[in-house]
Amino acid sequence: MNECGGGVPGATRRGFLTRAAGLAAAAGAALGADAVTPALAKADATAAAEAPQTEPFWGRNQGGIVTPAQGHTYFAALDLTTTKRDDVVQLLKAWTSAASRMASGKAIEPFAKTELAYNYDTTATVTTSSAEPTPTSISLPDTGEAEGLPPARLTVTFGFGPGLFEKEGKDRYGLAARRPEALADLPRFAGDELVPERTGGDLSIQACADDAQVAFHAVRQLVRLADDVAQVRWAQTGFMPNFGTGQTPRNLMGFKDGTNNPSTGDPTAMGKIVWVADDGPDWMQGGSYLVVRRIRIALEHWDRSKIDFQEQSFGRHKATGAPIGRDNEHDAVDLDATDKDGNYVIAENAHVRLAAAASNDGAQILRRPYSYNDGVNFTAERWPPWRQGMEYDAGLFFLCYQRDPRTGFVKVFEKMAKLDMLNQFVTHVGGGLFACPGGVAQGEFIGQRLFESA
Amino acid sequence: MNECGGGVPGATRRGFLTRAAGLAAAAGAALGADAVTPALAKADATAAAEAPQTEPFWGRNQGGIVTPAQGHTYFAALDLTTTKRDDVVQLLKAWTSAASRMASGKAIEPFAKTELAYNYDTTATVTTSSAEPTPTSISLPDTGEAEGLPPARLTVTFGFGPGLFEKEGKDRYGLAARRPEALADLPRFAGDELVPERTGGDLSIQACADDAQVAFHAVRQLVRLADDVAQVRWAQTGFMPNFGTGQTPRNLMGFKDGTNNPSTGDPTAMGKIVWVADDGPDWMQGGSYLVVRRIRIALEHWDRSKIDFQEQSFGRHKATGAPIGRDNEHDAVDLDATDKDGNYVIAENAHVRLAAAASNDGAQILRRPYSYNDGVNFTAERWPPWRQGMEYDAGLFFLCYQRDPRTGFVKVFEKMAKLDMLNQFVTHVGGGLFACPGGVAQGEFIGQRLFESA
Repeated sequence: MNECGGGVPGATRRGFLTRAAGLAAAAGAALGADAVTPALAKADATAAAEAPQTEPFWGRNQGGIVTPAQGHTYFAALDLTTTKRDDVVQLLKAWTSAASRMASGKAIEPFAKTELAYNYDTTATVTTSSAEPTPTSISLPDTGEAEGLPPARLTVTFGFGPGLFEKEGKDRYGLAARRPEALADLPRFAGDELVPERTGGDLSIQACADDAQVAFHAVRQLVRLADDVAQVRWAQTGFMPNFGTGQTPRNLMGFKDGTNNPSTGDPTAMGKIVWVADDGPDWMQGGSYLVVRRIRIALEHWDRSKIDFQEQSFGRHKATGAPIGRDNEHDAVDLDATDKDGNYVIAENAHVRLAAAASNDGAQILRRPYSYNDGVNFTAERWPPWRQGMEYDAGLFFLCYQRDPRTGFVKVFEKMAKLDMLNQFVTHVGGGLFACPGGVAQGEFIGQRLFESA
Repeated sequence: MNECGGGVPGATRRGFLTRAAGLAAAAGAALGADAVTPALAKADATAAAEAPQTEPFWGRNQGGIVTPAQGHTYFAALDLTTTKRDDVVQLLKAWTSAASRMASGKAIEPFAKTELAYNYDTTATVTTSSAEPTPTSISLPDTGEAEGLPPARLTVTFGFGPGLFEKEGKDRYGLAARRPEALADLPRFAGDELVPERTGGDLSIQACADDAQVAFHAVRQLVRLADDVAQVRWAQTGFMPNFGTGQTPRNLMGFKDGTNNPSTGDPTAMGKIVWVADDGPDWMQGGSYLVVRRIRIALEHWDRSKIDFQEQSFGRHKATGAPIGRDNEHDAVDLDATDKDGNYVIAENAHVRLAAAASNDGAQILRRPYSYNDGVNFTAERWPPWRQGMEYDAGLFFLCYQRDPRTGFVKVFEKMAKLDMLNQFVTHVGGGLFACPGGVAQGEFIGQRLFESA
């Protein structure tokens, strides 16, 4: 029913719960996951009709970077709490093993865990070595909420924040000398209102899937594996509406967002913009740098502005996505065009002008944004009418990848932070910077070359 | 490509932006929404293969109650700020008109709005009467983020909280005498930790759709219509994983949730459990009462418990969903069964025992729950090991419908709140109670009979 190949079409999670230690066992056998496959496969004709259900985990690059955007993300930034370098290595081994299993629709067991935090109510069974790269392990059963769900194109993308290399002046893991120059702390941008509770992190996990429960399930298992080694600092869910293949999705401002994003189907462009090559340390080759920004949008305020004003701010028409004065979304953005009075057709502080490569010495980034929607909370608006009250805590969960943030996001955003007309409506309230190492082959673990070479 | 009938299969939103006042217009015409229909219809073979893309708005009952659960919800509770009864009537007229349009995939314009809050940057065009039930209107353009998305089975369900009838001793709208007896304030249950910022509301909007952006779009338009009349008090997003047709979904505890829920396909059961008949006021006939609870789950704690203990707490096996000691999910729950030592097979405080109709004098409710996932925040656990730190703000966004909450949720939950073994892991932190009036025919507005008869 799926001819796309390359993945595991129609695959459903195997009945891992039935194999998990501590499970009242026999009942599961007869009703293992294979029994429900036909029903699921039918229902998921949906997603399966358009795309395979799995994305590759092993390879030169990590998944989730040039992978076509899935419908949901769960992003978590963690702080390392251990003082031991080997704990970090063991964690990365366990994460690699678990993530590879989950990407193919399997539960996490078996994985490495040297001890559990609590000795009551805990299922712990010592198992011997398996084909996984972890030598011995105590297995913990999968939490189970993805049991019966398809892999949903899950990707898990790991990143290393500055704190892995050095934190508060301490070289905790002997990696300080290995910190890439490109992993330079971001400057404070004009208008930044980053709150510490939503900013930074020593490690990052970006899980993306076509089902929100699959994405969260992945992070949840990985965080459990980090017990006593790292803890979640902040986390964010995001979603991407389904506008259909080949259509540019609209963001919460109602505008098409991503028309001029470089094509992930163009390896040359990705090599130039996204992937670190021999300009970086060996462990970063085939990797990329991730800049994350949680961008709150004052939707109540935006929704009261004239569409004409919105279009001038963006530099595009709302209905079509065409550059101002043009007819079609993919018409070229002509930054030099002027009207009969000699004024720029696309305003000087319009978003598309400031974001354009031509305005930034050719700088480009690969945007991979989601929208976020966290209900309402008490907010004081930054601009007239300066209302206070319960307002949407919603906006853009902006993720972008680049070969070097200094010539990527920093270059592009410095001017925008000062001048972009959209700044009246958007506020950066959190985020982070992470070095996402190159992908790995089966038997290796994420970041292995960083630790081996240090 | 969709033979299901009854809805508007494959329908896409019409190009309303192109008709909205203030839009740089001509560009839109050539590229109106019809032009993108083929591409969308293809991509949405997905959802369309299984179900029609629209749910009916008009009818004896409101949608979103016995409608098969969509993948996403956006729920908002609003406080009325106006002192004028007619403002409430006008709002309900505008809401009815707008919701009916959006349910069929149209944008909100035209709708009634007597004035706008701000006279700068605002697009306001006086339009004359149309076929809609609103006599004259000032039109405001749709915010546009659903333009190009299919209707995604959107339903919008409106509810009236106790505050519509009486608030702080005041009969603001002359409706106090019309408050149904069944809309009795909920008692404080054992363990309740409801916070005011997430509790209550004079009006409720439950928008459900198979696309998160469609659900939020609907609430966002309706909230705009309420400007100067009501404001959002709290809001919550929720999601439902796609386990496939006929499969019971797993909640975030990893258990199948809803096995014994009454069937929405059984009109007799719905008539008995859900729909108000001549036992209620005329405006509630064909309506139902909604109880909402935001139930935070201590997932970190739960995930450290043995699966055997989890199963005893639920009264079901985790892998299969079968009652303890049985093989299949849909096997009957035998509350009288004992083991060889004479102990109950299903523990005395197990969730399924306490929730069973047999344990509550036959009381039943229709559960229509979603999961919610709001990242992490600082939390102190209620139970050992009493850790404090960043923990998941995730759990169950529990919605249930019933003919009378006093003999429904209150009856079922009073005992559970005291005894359910799951209480070690779950905390009710917000919610509300709303009377959802009967559905309406085209030309009527939601709640019309309440206002006419008062």
